[in-house]
Amino acid sequence: MTRTGFDTALENLNEDLLRMGSIVEKQVHQCIVALVNQDEELAMQIIKNDDLVDDLQREIEDKCIRLIGKEQPLAIDLRTIFTISKIVTDLERMADHASNIAKAVKRLKNEVYIKELVDIPKMSLIVEKMIKKSLDSFISRDVEAIKEICKMDDEVDALYKGVFNDLLAIMAKDIKNLNQATQFILIASKLERIGDHVTNICEWNVYLVTGEHMDLNE
Amino acid sequence: MTRTGFDTALENLNEDLLRMGSIVEKQVHQCIVALVNQDEELAMQIIKNDDLVDDLQREIEDKCIRLIGKEQPLAIDLRTIFTISKIVTDLERMADHASNIAKAVKRLKNEVYIKELVDIPKMSLIVEKMIKKSLDSFISRDVEAIKEICKMDDEVDALYKGVFNDLLAIMAKDIKNLNQATQFILIASKLERIGDHVTNICEWNVYLVTGEHMDLNE
Repeated sequence: MTRTGFDTALENLNEDLLRMGSIVEKQVHQCIVALVNQDEELAMQIIKNDDLVDDLQREIEDKCIRLIGKEQPLAIDLRTIFTISKIVTDLERMADHASNIAKAVKRLKNEVYIKELVDIPKMSLIVEKMIKKSLDSFISRDVEAIKEICKMDDEVDALYKGVFNDLLAIMAKDIKNLNQATQFILIASKLERIGDHVTNICEWNVYLVTGEHMDLNE
Repeated sequence: MTRTGFDTALENLNEDLLRMGSIVEKQVHQCIVALVNQDEELAMQIIKNDDLVDDLQREIEDKCIRLIGKEQPLAIDLRTIFTISKIVTDLERMADHASNIAKAVKRLKNEVYIKELVDIPKMSLIVEKMIKKSLDSFISRDVEAIKEICKMDDEVDALYKGVFNDLLAIMAKDIKNLNQATQFILIASKLERIGDHVTNICEWNVYLVTGEHMDLNE
């Protein structure tokens, strides 16, 4: 493979990564839409789409390992491929959480919601933006953007604490709400976890640019 | 580096991985011991040890990338290093869950436990065994052992459902138990998640031996 061939292969990997990222972002968005609208059909679609995400992850990982084997890249090229192979793991886990939220939507389909879904949709909106920004930062190698993403993650964490307390109060009011509120707490905890995965991606972006590891997930 | 030099480096990586695995296994074990005994000091130790796990992960990842860059390994050698770099991600996430459980222990330190901790300690015992077995299977390249690990994961999932229902019933009995029972549900969900990480390791073990990807996490 010529240098141009290698660059094309790397470009191709970047595109795959962005494609996977945008599917995952959509999965996260849609699972909360399905939750809000109690849309079982959409939930089932999300669960099905999770297989596509898994396939895409494997495809990208295979390309990474083949490219390393074939081209024996060094320094920044090797770091780029290694970073991509790490980012897809986090993306896949995010999609996994979205799929698990969709499964909870199915369990909740016949419930009458006690109250608007506290701040869960708000958490989700921030998390979706974080996913997008983290991949933009990967492409643009913009390490500065990461500070903003970390601030957003702090916001998600704070919202999660609020959601947790709101839901405990809702449970305390009427034990009929127990199952529903507990499911909502678990959903919120998955969104919080998705935020953590985004900060993992940011750590890899920092590594890619600086060659240094950084702990953003405190 | 000679072939022997490479083998030594790989051997060294294997040892690092096992060392990390055994620390993670211990972290998972200890966080439940801390929970059972409401041992805040132990909980704080676990939270502190999590930094060691993070450092070890980075150290191993750095070794992987340096070894690839230096030796440009092919086929099984490359797959082995790639697999190690993937397994450490799952180990780190498990330790992360253990550390989060330890944080919950701190929050629960002054509570009088309503009841024995339902099946949480039982879940933990199985999960610890799963971690050990998955690393044994990596070292021995024993793909057969994976079937057994998957069965254990099914058991963990079933226990989780039971724990969830038991805790809902405990909440329903007395709303004073709400916070405590909700914390326990979240703890159980983290143990369930640790089990999923073990099956991810198993998937990598299968990949290592067969070159094929397999979805064990259904």
